[in-house]
Amino acid sequence: MRYSTFFPKTSKTIPKDEVAINAKLLLQGGFIDKLMAGSYSLLPLGRRVERKIEDIVRHEMDLTGAQEVLMPLLHPKNIWNETGRWDTAKEVMYQFEKNEKEYALSFTHEEIVMDLIRKNLSSYKDLPIKIYHFSTKFRQELRAKSGILRGREFLMKDLYSAHTSEEDLMKYYWEVADAYLKAFARMGIKVVIAEADGGVFTKSMTHEFQLQTEAGEDTIYMADGWRYWKNKEVMTDEDFKNPTLQTVKAIEVGNIFPLGTMYAEKMNVTFTDSDGMKKPVWFGSYGIGMTRLVGAIVEASHDDKGIIWPIAVAPYTIHLVGLSEKAEGVYKKLLEEKLEVLFDDRDVSAGQKFGDADLLGMPLRLVVSDRNPGKIEFKRRSSEKVELVDEKDLLSKLSEYI
Amino acid sequence: MRYSTFFPKTSKTIPKDEVAINAKLLLQGGFIDKLMAGSYSLLPLGRRVERKIEDIVRHEMDLTGAQEVLMPLLHPKNIWNETGRWDTAKEVMYQFEKNEKEYALSFTHEEIVMDLIRKNLSSYKDLPIKIYHFSTKFRQELRAKSGILRGREFLMKDLYSAHTSEEDLMKYYWEVADAYLKAFARMGIKVVIAEADGGVFTKSMTHEFQLQTEAGEDTIYMADGWRYWKNKEVMTDEDFKNPTLQTVKAIEVGNIFPLGTMYAEKMNVTFTDSDGMKKPVWFGSYGIGMTRLVGAIVEASHDDKGIIWPIAVAPYTIHLVGLSEKAEGVYKKLLEEKLEVLFDDRDVSAGQKFGDADLLGMPLRLVVSDRNPGKIEFKRRSSEKVELVDEKDLLSKLSEYI
Repeated sequence: MRYSTFFPKTSKTIPKDEVAINAKLLLQGGFIDKLMAGSYSLLPLGRRVERKIEDIVRHEMDLTGAQEVLMPLLHPKNIWNETGRWDTAKEVMYQFEKNEKEYALSFTHEEIVMDLIRKNLSSYKDLPIKIYHFSTKFRQELRAKSGILRGREFLMKDLYSAHTSEEDLMKYYWEVADAYLKAFARMGIKVVIAEADGGVFTKSMTHEFQLQTEAGEDTIYMADGWRYWKNKEVMTDEDFKNPTLQTVKAIEVGNIFPLGTMYAEKMNVTFTDSDGMKKPVWFGSYGIGMTRLVGAIVEASHDDKGIIWPIAVAPYTIHLVGLSEKAEGVYKKLLEEKLEVLFDDRDVSAGQKFGDADLLGMPLRLVVSDRNPGKIEFKRRSSEKVELVDEKDLLSKLSEYI
Repeated sequence: MRYSTFFPKTSKTIPKDEVAINAKLLLQGGFIDKLMAGSYSLLPLGRRVERKIEDIVRHEMDLTGAQEVLMPLLHPKNIWNETGRWDTAKEVMYQFEKNEKEYALSFTHEEIVMDLIRKNLSSYKDLPIKIYHFSTKFRQELRAKSGILRGREFLMKDLYSAHTSEEDLMKYYWEVADAYLKAFARMGIKVVIAEADGGVFTKSMTHEFQLQTEAGEDTIYMADGWRYWKNKEVMTDEDFKNPTLQTVKAIEVGNIFPLGTMYAEKMNVTFTDSDGMKKPVWFGSYGIGMTRLVGAIVEASHDDKGIIWPIAVAPYTIHLVGLSEKAEGVYKKLLEEKLEVLFDDRDVSAGQKFGDADLLGMPLRLVVSDRNPGKIEFKRRSSEKVELVDEKDLLSKLSEYI
């Protein structure tokens, strides 16, 4: 893609009302735009990052046997009333009345999934059911100050599963945990599992997926002999006295909830088991914050010049800085190889092009100029080392990283 | 995919409160579920159809140089007030107050796009701008009785473009019209262009993309010498007197609006032209109803037994009816060839399997039974002819259609 035709370009002004690094860099780079407090558009570069994350997550979800759906965002009050969450989750939900009916905007989908399942469930042979979607969530956040880490409107992947037994639920629960770890590893980020409590979702122990970074809103703890990290909420006085305790800051990018039979009991979601008995289904839900991940990766991977995208989620793999007409030929050659290239073909200074390449953060930078005939300058965004590569060796050089 | 593990299965009950064929067949087939009046979930089969349509549309949009974004669904009143549409489109918009602020749910995005563009536009060099997204729309429909043809919540692809001149706008306008016709042709459906008026969008003449089918809510007209069909709204008394007038029913699946400079003038979206003058941008918007298309295709392509999916948008290409254990081997062989197969591996009667295959409507049906050793039964959903194919010739037979 030619950067000359790209919408929008980088911006020189640092947004005054933003304190979070992710918001500053993503706004300056033109990855996102702010519509109002806590509400952002994903612009072409940002949408590309999100779609790459989405492809990885979708693939890992499908491998667990889950199937993709798309559920509505506007929900009727009566279904939320069945579990009592119309009232208990009032603070977080956008609720409103229209033509004498009450509605809520989705902040999660447990009740909607349960309503869907009970209409389509009779026998144990219909279970397990595993469905997920990528969709918009709305949450009333009093203070939205963390950029796209905590928006009032954002994209989430949420998966739901229903089972005949606790054993089958927990087997799938840990299968999803593995799928999450695999997905995060494929994105090129380091995420750990932490024990946490269930908030408005459940009274059981749940698990969070935490990306370690200084900018994290959460603190997580680890000590010798523990299998998982612990979120502050589940730490006991005993835990705090552990002499081997380590503490790090982290951003929660996913969570998994073993919800048990509480939702099924309240909403009457039952099946006839092989023994002829009617039983409530065992239910679990599993989320990944898609928009949040884009911001979390920026928090965990940047320097004072800009973003450093891991190769698997970078909007483009290669940033081609054109400083001579020869760059056109190199661009075409790279496109023929089906490589993803952002080609800075603008009529602006070399300094501005280098600055923008650092800000935008594509993993591999190529510079084509008249200074080095027959050679192309190669640099990784994550390294200071600049190498001169013979034009004929360019593809083999790139293949070391792609 | 094994149909035994699919969610949900087909249903024998015909939904009583639905009158539209698309809703009846899609609900019975388990493609969609109804949450409340005018609001449906896309279930795994339905989401697969929608995603296939999405891939085709995305590809054609990208070829016009447009870039994908994702804009918020919850909008602040002040931006909608700038064009006056907070009031003029009140009937169709969901508007509500929350914490002493007024919001609307997106029924379209012109104002939001214009706000985005004016923040990122200074010179004619920044134009044209062409951005699109696939996103949810909300519209207050008084009576929602057409299944997924007219929902209160649905998916739409909307594209917006901004230009330096009317000439450049109209050049792109017709480029998008061509891209739409190409996309619909790739989906395997017959869509024509009709002249229409602009409703709450514009006072200019606009164009609709109409799929001809008896179930259509719209009537369109054609006469000798006309280049395009005409929507009823733009027909004159003169037109009605034309002796060569033809009339057909049709469903609107897309529309394009040459919006001119009205939005830019009201919202102060200007650029400095090459002559140094500040000018308002020329603006256009272009929609395709994604959820509606799924329903429209069903209306246009079904028989009394069920749906007949065109191959390009079918959830699976092949419906494999397993009536003997040999079917397992055929299934694996087809998967190895990376073909999309729905394998009915359930322990139910042959009659039920055939009935479900007809209802679900995959384009190619294969039957593996012990009745014809070494042979596989091949049938197209759109034809009555059943052929016996040697197992070794199966792939070459399939390749005639895929």
